[in-house]
Amino acid sequence: MEHYDVIVIGGGPAGVTCAISAHNTYPDKKIAVIRKEQIALIPCGIPYTLVSLDSVDADILPDQLIQNTGADLIIDEVIGKDGKNLQLKSGRKLAYDKLVLATGSTPKVPSIAGIDKTGVFTVQKDRDYLVQMRKYAQEVQNIVIIGGGYIGLEMADEASRAGKNVTVIELLNHLLAMSMDTEFGEKAREVLETNGARVLTGQRVKSITGGRAVQGVALESGEEIPAEMVIVSVGGRPNVALAEKFGLDYNPKHGILVNEYMRTSDKDIFAVGDCAAKYDFFSGEFTDIRLASTAMAEGRLVGSDLFEIKVIRQYIGVLGSFSTKLGDTAFGVSGITEEKAKAMNLDYTVGTAVTVDRHPGKLRGASPLHLKLIFSRYSHTLLGAQMHGGDSVGELVNMFSVMILNKMTDMDIDTLQIGTHPLLTASPVAYPVINATVDAIKKWYQYEPV
Amino acid sequence: MEHYDVIVIGGGPAGVTCAISAHNTYPDKKIAVIRKEQIALIPCGIPYTLVSLDSVDADILPDQLIQNTGADLIIDEVIGKDGKNLQLKSGRKLAYDKLVLATGSTPKVPSIAGIDKTGVFTVQKDRDYLVQMRKYAQEVQNIVIIGGGYIGLEMADEASRAGKNVTVIELLNHLLAMSMDTEFGEKAREVLETNGARVLTGQRVKSITGGRAVQGVALESGEEIPAEMVIVSVGGRPNVALAEKFGLDYNPKHGILVNEYMRTSDKDIFAVGDCAAKYDFFSGEFTDIRLASTAMAEGRLVGSDLFEIKVIRQYIGVLGSFSTKLGDTAFGVSGITEEKAKAMNLDYTVGTAVTVDRHPGKLRGASPLHLKLIFSRYSHTLLGAQMHGGDSVGELVNMFSVMILNKMTDMDIDTLQIGTHPLLTASPVAYPVINATVDAIKKWYQYEPV
Repeated sequence: MEHYDVIVIGGGPAGVTCAISAHNTYPDKKIAVIRKEQIALIPCGIPYTLVSLDSVDADILPDQLIQNTGADLIIDEVIGKDGKNLQLKSGRKLAYDKLVLATGSTPKVPSIAGIDKTGVFTVQKDRDYLVQMRKYAQEVQNIVIIGGGYIGLEMADEASRAGKNVTVIELLNHLLAMSMDTEFGEKAREVLETNGARVLTGQRVKSITGGRAVQGVALESGEEIPAEMVIVSVGGRPNVALAEKFGLDYNPKHGILVNEYMRTSDKDIFAVGDCAAKYDFFSGEFTDIRLASTAMAEGRLVGSDLFEIKVIRQYIGVLGSFSTKLGDTAFGVSGITEEKAKAMNLDYTVGTAVTVDRHPGKLRGASPLHLKLIFSRYSHTLLGAQMHGGDSVGELVNMFSVMILNKMTDMDIDTLQIGTHPLLTASPVAYPVINATVDAIKKWYQYEPV
Repeated sequence: MEHYDVIVIGGGPAGVTCAISAHNTYPDKKIAVIRKEQIALIPCGIPYTLVSLDSVDADILPDQLIQNTGADLIIDEVIGKDGKNLQLKSGRKLAYDKLVLATGSTPKVPSIAGIDKTGVFTVQKDRDYLVQMRKYAQEVQNIVIIGGGYIGLEMADEASRAGKNVTVIELLNHLLAMSMDTEFGEKAREVLETNGARVLTGQRVKSITGGRAVQGVALESGEEIPAEMVIVSVGGRPNVALAEKFGLDYNPKHGILVNEYMRTSDKDIFAVGDCAAKYDFFSGEFTDIRLASTAMAEGRLVGSDLFEIKVIRQYIGVLGSFSTKLGDTAFGVSGITEEKAKAMNLDYTVGTAVTVDRHPGKLRGASPLHLKLIFSRYSHTLLGAQMHGGDSVGELVNMFSVMILNKMTDMDIDTLQIGTHPLLTASPVAYPVINATVDAIKKWYQYEPV
């Protein structure tokens, strides 16, 4: 039987990164990546295949990344396992020493009447499906997006950009409700509405109407919104079918159970990325934050630790670190929001700053930047950061992740040495990371209630 | 005699921030800021008063910042001190409890024959002087910049933008030689040359030629470059005259001697910003890195610690953290360069990554990003980062500062949780912070010599 030292099942970001990392750390090992799909995609680029990219194929994750490592890329599907031998759909059998499950997640399909009508789409990591979806979008005028999370809003922004009549329907009472506070959700609403979309929050969908094809979306409020196309984006579920077949421990909602080294209940099998259960950085409880960047951090860890634990893990939970861009406004968040802090009954202080991200503010490229920081009032540690502004938000978010992961306090940040430049950042006098921190310090120091 | 609890001498970034911080921490204290200049400027915006800003006045640091704190702004000059009483030029006398020197720095004027001719300018923090300089630049065609550091190159970029014939002359063998490695200096050369400037490195100026007014710059090589205007930007010197008058310890080249709380040899007198001596983060030796952002970190610290030490200082040296933009290319550096690592005889590893800062790379706003990291080979700590690319460099540099200040290792960064977004950052597969780190890990792991 064919034998590989390492077999990775799944060719998304987690799987590919794991193969690269395994090759870097164990260059002499024989590695295979088994992937079901003929073509793999960059997951976070998928919303942009609707309009901004010239074609869905511009979002392909190149096979070259795998081939560069010397790993074999096998397009096939694993259907079973006997001891340490995998059975593939093609009939082929492969033996492994170490196995990595990187089987990803699948969009949730809510049980709404009419969900199976022609013209209803979910956001799938499937090239041919997305080609269909892009074509469909080009031919219609009225698009309803069900779900006001990141992906839904990115899709809405894309559709508005293409001149469509867009309506976003969100069940919760503000947009981005799983990841950002109300005022940021309201800013997202403002951007979308300015660009012509209609935004409905706190509204439940009753049914999708029409004959074989979609004609509209009926709300419980009684309103019916005309639509030839509906895009449903209400989160994902981990793909645990193989884990179940293999007899591994898993939680059907949250994923394959893993320890901090991403090892499953079988010591030679690891799980990484969306299929592996995630734990919250602050509470240790299950979380449904599934990000390509987290997936890849896990992939790198496992790639290095396959045959022995080389990289000691420094953290046990997932620190949600997101960014997105709607219209010309970028949004970002790392760590805890105020709404989450309340839900967790944390004793916290909020610091805010508003500034312009160039200085003087009249220089080219300037945008306003709004920043909100959450600190532990008692222990002074930074817990979370939310912001909207110009493109610099993309890396600002990562700076905050580094700060939170390092348990930096308000005092650490107050005395931080940062660099600023007129054409690239806010003025040092107005630098929002510092000023929001100083605002938070003033509040606890002067015993100001939140 | 009039009495203030706190008097700050100097109204630049360090002084203003110190007054703000003092007011935040000690809201009941009576504070004055004494400033010589009628008008204060944002120092890092000064190069952009040449062309990009509509006027020099667009770069004014607003007095409102001081007035908002309730502090008195006194336009006058301190000329002497008797015990804890200051004598002002106007004849006024003011008593203080705590005194903060924030007297700044002055551009160096090299001893070149002809340096006093009409048309030769240094880069001064003086509104009227800069108005003259801007006007002069508008009327000439040939401009020579002496000095290939950040400010000189920003001035060169501005002058090129205005269609002038620009020549940059640098004594050392590459541009930005005090702060970045050769390949980054060469990238800066490429950008400037593409935009029409001429760049001469490793060249010494012999004299500035002409009658009363400049006609050219003669090099030791024998060449003479025609010029109606010469801008000299070869660094600055701390303003220590008052410290000398007050009998404080100082080093004439490096500034007023201070401890880690920025206290001078007189326990009731502090010094912050460019006038205070700076120590290198890695070596503890004097450094000539003088940045507005560092000045303000010092101002904040002293503002909080005036009457008792509240904020415990976490660092003893200055971590140089710069960024700039030439043409459409941003440059950034934090910490140690490879050239400095060699000079210090550090055992180091280099990791590099080149990527596109959007993903897929075909999305709007994409620029290539080049990153070079220096790690301690033996202790694995991140020592420095250099990069050039799009505007995201401005905040990337600050993320690296946070990493270096937290003594993060290659393993910490390898398992770091970061966020990425198609329209804002590189792809997670290509995220350069991680990939350059992985490159460095591969090198020490495989015992590859630098």
